[in-house]
Amino acid sequence: MKITYCARSERSTRNRFMRLKHSGDLRRAHRVEVVRSFYGGEPRTRLELANQLGLSVATIGTIVGELTKAGFLKEAAGARTGGGRPATQLTLRGGGSLVVGVDVAETYVTAELFDQAMARLARKRVPVLENAPEAVVEHVLAAVAAVRRQVYEAPVSAIGVSLPGQVEARLRPLLERRWDVPVLLDNPLKAITLAEQMFGAARDQDDVIVVNLGTGVGLGVVAGGRLLRGATNNAGEWGHTVLEAGGQPCRCGGRGCVEAYVGAGALMRLLEGSPFLVSGDQDATVARLAEAVRLGDSAALETLTRFARPLGLALANAVNMLNPELIVFGGWVSAALGEPLVSAVTPVIKEYALATPFEAATAVLGRHLDNPVSLGMAVLAFETHLLD
Amino acid sequence: MKITYCARSERSTRNRFMRLKHSGDLRRAHRVEVVRSFYGGEPRTRLELANQLGLSVATIGTIVGELTKAGFLKEAAGARTGGGRPATQLTLRGGGSLVVGVDVAETYVTAELFDQAMARLARKRVPVLENAPEAVVEHVLAAVAAVRRQVYEAPVSAIGVSLPGQVEARLRPLLERRWDVPVLLDNPLKAITLAEQMFGAARDQDDVIVVNLGTGVGLGVVAGGRLLRGATNNAGEWGHTVLEAGGQPCRCGGRGCVEAYVGAGALMRLLEGSPFLVSGDQDATVARLAEAVRLGDSAALETLTRFARPLGLALANAVNMLNPELIVFGGWVSAALGEPLVSAVTPVIKEYALATPFEAATAVLGRHLDNPVSLGMAVLAFETHLLD
Ligand SMILES: [Zn+2]
Ligand SMILES: [Zn+2]
Repeated sequence: MKITYCARSERSTRNRFMRLKHSGDLRRAHRVEVVRSFYGGEPRTRLELANQLGLSVATIGTIVGELTKAGFLKEAAGARTGGGRPATQLTLRGGGSLVVGVDVAETYVTAELFDQAMARLARKRVPVLENAPEAVVEHVLAAVAAVRRQVYEAPVSAIGVSLPGQVEARLRPLLERRWDVPVLLDNPLKAITLAEQMFGAARDQDDVIVVNLGTGVGLGVVAGGRLLRGATNNAGEWGHTVLEAGGQPCRCGGRGCVEAYVGAGALMRLLEGSPFLVSGDQDATVARLAEAVRLGDSAALETLTRFARPLGLALANAVNMLNPELIVFGGWVSAALGEPLVSAVTPVIKEYALATPFEAATAVLGRHLDNPVSLGMAVLAFETHLLD
Repeated sequence: MKITYCARSERSTRNRFMRLKHSGDLRRAHRVEVVRSFYGGEPRTRLELANQLGLSVATIGTIVGELTKAGFLKEAAGARTGGGRPATQLTLRGGGSLVVGVDVAETYVTAELFDQAMARLARKRVPVLENAPEAVVEHVLAAVAAVRRQVYEAPVSAIGVSLPGQVEARLRPLLERRWDVPVLLDNPLKAITLAEQMFGAARDQDDVIVVNLGTGVGLGVVAGGRLLRGATNNAGEWGHTVLEAGGQPCRCGGRGCVEAYVGAGALMRLLEGSPFLVSGDQDATVARLAEAVRLGDSAALETLTRFARPLGLALANAVNMLNPELIVFGGWVSAALGEPLVSAVTPVIKEYALATPFEAATAVLGRHLDNPVSLGMAVLAFETHLLD
């Protein structure tokens, strides 16, 4: 089956200044918008949808008709039918086309199975002990097969796989023709940002940055309500913007990159010689530090303050450039350190950002939708059905 | 007359994921899109417009009807009318509502008068010798009055004024109720970027950064075809992202900002003690340097190479973050130094950017549409008529 790289669904919904290639693009984009508007929200009428999305009731009627016929929408139970057809409340129909979202991380692969209303039906996480591309691909196939087995006769209709940038080129050819359904590839940053935008902290926000703090770091950007992808889907490489020219070596081969100061690896270096360090185990180290911070340990708090400085500076740069209304702290390092991280970083952002963009922005912890990467990839995979 | 700050026209055209406040917003957005699609382009039929904008022929028919009735569009001379109504070519109608675009810069005010097809009819530039807000406002009023006088009985219908961020708060109240027509305020970065996008180097490009190099510096961003504004219209403060923590003092009060290394002021510092320096005169100094570069003077070329380093590094950061397909060098410093500047900076961008986003981007000199700020502001002012 063909593999689509880089979610064109998102691109095809670009606004009308864009040169849409076919007039059908707009109809497809409208379908995506209507379905997305239901995620994490209430049932609503055609009139409410029209008002919310800025489309005419007639256009909404056509789209709702198509989506209902295709089995993606249904009338809500207990819908107010008294007021005639336009007052009927609609909602997403569960079941139907199942989709799998896969998170290929450095140390594990997680596959999750969702129904078409994005209710999670099954989950499988397998550790990745070996980084050879062939081995990783076998783990991906095993995890996907496992979740498919967990649901009786599950008719999986699409699979979305998130691949980190560093391994994408090597894994992509190995994943081709391994499944009998459409496969969509994207990167974890886009998936996390989309999940926060659809179901998490960034819902109903138009200008958002989602900082993904893990072993690698990146910045997902929602600008004017849309995921920023850039010309080749590489936008968000904030982790490899230079914080200090000629500074710390970075695994990209450069020097002084943000990632070399604010990723889990940098935190490990900061903790060298401290009792929090569990050598070679980032997860355990960050967990220990987080626990000590919660207990008010002064050495742990001091480490957090030191860690917050380059992170706050790099985020201030993003705030000045992008003027977001919301800064979401995501990724496993943020999840582990929690609110104390947000509290430590915010004054540093204030120190380095201009006053107006700083005042416009609120910093929050991500909802850490479990797992945002597979959820975001499942949404993108499902949307391939709306684009036919 | 009321003053509108920050072009809401652009925001109202956000795509349908956005929560448009009124369903009429979409109709207004479509009007803007149709008019913009004609700028710098050929006459075209309703069918061609529909294909280009991804709208139905019926929708285009309605919008074209409204715009024709309002006197903004007309049938093109020599239109192919043989094929019936849908084959009629349309074009912008000149004359009609005239608009004034005003560029309030540090050392001058330029006012330009345009007809509704953005043909320039008159221009007035007055030097600003004194920076007191009241004095600047008097220059603005005088320049606008001068261009209005230059065109016989010109019925000016809107005025767009670009105010630099530093003086905006002080000038804004002084400009209120000084004219009898709607006034729209925005900042020069947005105006320049819009002008390059509509008429210049960025036409038909979806992901663009326009670096504005002058006394101040900024980065205009087009993302997915739309001008990036951010939550409070402050996006693009690249000039005050930190290039070197604790480095050169910047006029924003911070230290180590990009502007402190890549603006005209930084170039003046770099030229201290050189024969190119005309003390206290940035224009003359940059012109001298540019002339020497053109003549192949080795000291001038070395200065350019040194100037290119921080600029290339700061642009590499923007390339990594935003993944543009086009980097446009704009502003008067770029105009003066020309292609040699682009050639000097490009290898530095390559050195610091990741390979994939670097390869995706092309660096070009802006068209230096004369004057992009007043042109962009005139477009925004005119669009207030499309949003009623
Ligand atoms: Zn790096
Ligand atoms: Zn500054």
